[in-house]
Amino acid sequence: MELSRFGALPNGGVNRQALSEEEIQTRAQRLRGDDPGLAPVLIGSHIDSQPTGGKFDGAYGVLAALESVEAIVAAGLKPRRNIDVVAWMNEEESRFAPGMMGSAVFAGARKIEDVLVVRAGITVEAALKKVLGAAPRLPQRQLGAIPAAFLEAHTEQGPLLEADNQKVEIVTGIQEKRTYRVKVDGEENHAGTSPRSVRRDALVSAISILNALHKVMWDEQDIVRFTVGMFNVAPNAPSVVPSQVLFSIDLRHLDAATLRELGDMIAPICAREKLRCNAEVTELLHDPPLAFPADIRATLKSIAEALAIPNMEMASGAGHDARYLHYVCPTGMIFIPCKNGISHSEEESITKEDQQFSF
Amino acid sequence: MELSRFGALPNGGVNRQALSEEEIQTRAQRLRGDDPGLAPVLIGSHIDSQPTGGKFDGAYGVLAALESVEAIVAAGLKPRRNIDVVAWMNEEESRFAPGMMGSAVFAGARKIEDVLVVRAGITVEAALKKVLGAAPRLPQRQLGAIPAAFLEAHTEQGPLLEADNQKVEIVTGIQEKRTYRVKVDGEENHAGTSPRSVRRDALVSAISILNALHKVMWDEQDIVRFTVGMFNVAPNAPSVVPSQVLFSIDLRHLDAATLRELGDMIAPICAREKLRCNAEVTELLHDPPLAFPADIRATLKSIAEALAIPNMEMASGAGHDARYLHYVCPTGMIFIPCKNGISHSEEESITKEDQQFSF
Repeated sequence: MELSRFGALPNGGVNRQALSEEEIQTRAQRLRGDDPGLAPVLIGSHIDSQPTGGKFDGAYGVLAALESVEAIVAAGLKPRRNIDVVAWMNEEESRFAPGMMGSAVFAGARKIEDVLVVRAGITVEAALKKVLGAAPRLPQRQLGAIPAAFLEAHTEQGPLLEADNQKVEIVTGIQEKRTYRVKVDGEENHAGTSPRSVRRDALVSAISILNALHKVMWDEQDIVRFTVGMFNVAPNAPSVVPSQVLFSIDLRHLDAATLRELGDMIAPICAREKLRCNAEVTELLHDPPLAFPADIRATLKSIAEALAIPNMEMASGAGHDARYLHYVCPTGMIFIPCKNGISHSEEESITKEDQQFSF
Repeated sequence: MELSRFGALPNGGVNRQALSEEEIQTRAQRLRGDDPGLAPVLIGSHIDSQPTGGKFDGAYGVLAALESVEAIVAAGLKPRRNIDVVAWMNEEESRFAPGMMGSAVFAGARKIEDVLVVRAGITVEAALKKVLGAAPRLPQRQLGAIPAAFLEAHTEQGPLLEADNQKVEIVTGIQEKRTYRVKVDGEENHAGTSPRSVRRDALVSAISILNALHKVMWDEQDIVRFTVGMFNVAPNAPSVVPSQVLFSIDLRHLDAATLRELGDMIAPICAREKLRCNAEVTELLHDPPLAFPADIRATLKSIAEALAIPNMEMASGAGHDARYLHYVCPTGMIFIPCKNGISHSEEESITKEDQQFSF
């Protein structure tokens, strides 16, 4: 709860978007590593938040990592490898797109040059300089160093653990995800005078596109995750016919073939349903599905069993920094329950009891 | 064109929203009145613009009024009454809602206390103080003074004059208008984990509402003017299920009974189509239809005929300050053609030849 003071919102949530002042303050709080030598084990998650995010998404994993290190020290254990606690940069995508920037660059999945120029008012490069400037004593690790392993604890962000009265989920993998931006261009006109037949109303076209997409994406089994979270209308004035709509699409599915098929339908649907406007579709990201290594999952399960913690195995619907670390070193994740499965919301909550479960 | 320097946009349009710095500069340019005595004749329009507005909407009418006064002086004519040139405050509604604030208060249709507290970052009262402070030598007329008459020249903002090769439209009246705000409240959630069946997605609900409204409002004859120009989604992040949508409705019709009937359907449709969210409808404005006095229309027509200017009679689809002046004094309007009927857009354009037609 200490961490949730930074960027606190009046309704109990947090606004600590990537590389913001709020995040700088948090990052400078505490972070300790052991001596160098062998490739280290990394434990952690992220501390940036959605604009009206919850206290525990990401932050729980970083604090659990710190607690784990303290517990190891307190128990007088001397691990062979250093254990570094990490807080990856810009996991959430709410400020800079795409998300999971820090872990993607660290793992070599994105180039640092491509990431530094991303702009949201300020560039990532300038914001990062501020963050690093605020923690001058923080040792900097060269990009490209391969860790011995990565472990990440996180809230489930779904309702299954709570519903099933389980305490820990051993995460088997992460579902596939594709993200898009759709830009619909029409023409401004006067709301009182221009007849509908001559209008090129970008909002009307965007809704026509979304109606068609909903029809295709919404399956009876309710497995496809299709979300339009960002939707901007210009010039956004009550008596002006909208000339532009820019919206996001976030599409996820546990089955890679289905996701590929659904994602590939987006551009043709936009082209077909754009009415009298233009529609331009850009795919930002296509993250394949992944399965964490069986031996790490087995180790996590055996520990949970040894400690008599009720546990289950399940794939993650959400993306995590563990996705990118998985590409360069053995990686594992555990989830703890969150209240009513609610996340990316100020309503997000976990119990004091559940917080004790970390590595 | 001189006036379009203030708030000029790179694409040729203007952004000179009500009571902004750009408007202060414009207002201070020139404005002259004759000696007091009898109730004056007012001529003018407005100089505030939409955020990406055109050069001529409003500004043409104010400059045409100044030109008319100059032409009268140059011709050595001595009118019996003073002629005051007016630029009414906040006609457009793009900055402060509702629009036509200045003329409505002047005509007693709104109370000044209600208008001064309207806020868009700054209050109308504070912004107005800046405007008046920038023109300390401008004489101030008491509210409640009844003019002898009001005349307003404006661009048509529609395609009819141009299509019919007419040069001047004698405006018969103004169509009825109702405006609304609809607020849809749902619940934030995670785009990757929350199944659709548990979501309360405010954007999905808003689209469901708009689909039903479009079905009812879009007539085959294309006479109803139904526009959603403002549409704001919160928290507006790509991987967060939207928790709120706030959108505007602008509804107009030449037939008062039809407009009443259509407008009264909005709240029930929102209630029926809101899915798992809440929907709250607020009516901001209900302006009845009006017909300008027959004798003013006849005078304008006889002048046009005497000068051999091709002219036609037609009601206005757009609202104008003349609406409110009509309630307190004999009021008339003329329109001149605008290119392709486009208005509320940087594309707005009129010909040099057509600019000569004023009172």
